[in-house]
Amino acid sequence: MEPSPYAKNCGSRQVLDRIGDRWSVLVVLMLADGLKRYSELAQRIEGVSQKMLTQTLRGLERDGLVTRTVHATVPPRVDYDLTDLGRSVLDLVAGLEAWATTHLGDVLAARSRYDAQQERRGSAA
Amino acid sequence: MEPSPYAKNCGSRQVLDRIGDRWSVLVVLMLADGLKRYSELAQRIEGVSQKMLTQTLRGLERDGLVTRTVHATVPPRVDYDLTDLGRSVLDLVAGLEAWATTHLGDVLAARSRYDAQQERRGSAA
Repeated sequence: MEPSPYAKNCGSRQVLDRIGDRWSVLVVLMLADGLKRYSELAQRIEGVSQKMLTQTLRGLERDGLVTRTVHATVPPRVDYDLTDLGRSVLDLVAGLEAWATTHLGDVLAARSRYDAQQERRGSAA
Repeated sequence: MEPSPYAKNCGSRQVLDRIGDRWSVLVVLMLADGLKRYSELAQRIEGVSQKMLTQTLRGLERDGLVTRTVHATVPPRVDYDLTDLGRSVLDLVAGLEAWATTHLGDVLAARSRYDAQQERRGSAA
């Protein structure tokens, strides 16, 4: 049977969650031009908590998209890099990021219209 | 200033969440070949709760990706369709779905390797 994310128990749903996840998208994009230290990722991706970044990196590593290399320096340095599998999703997540920034204005305008309409309905009721 | 999802308070992060969301992806893909009734969506997207589907559709409508049309029949029929903005994201979400199904095997294999390694580390400690 072909995998299908429409099917209740198909693992492809979890894969979809991984590659569509906000923090995963940003980490993968940051690694597009080569390996990064944990501290660089934490600094560049504003507002991500340490817990969330660690969890995201662990998920990406477990799913085979990212490698984690610990260097025996003092203090230890931890580098993250994309695997071939991670590289194969780059164009897609770059597309998501580009769509989100290009169409932000359209989405915000749609939200204003929707909220105004809901308000009119509320006050008419 | 250009929108950037790396910036803490940029709305593009929420747009990224919308288009990367598992249920949004599946709804948008289902609407690719034309409008659908609520009941068709609920039936085809296995395991989605009514609450989650309603919330997803409301979010997509609010963000301007989907239209909701109520027909004055008894019982009332509610149709959902893509807007032009919704159509503009179709290729991207189809790409996400295709990646997820194509690479499911790779991801599952990576998980098994990761979990086995963690287990070895655990028993060695």
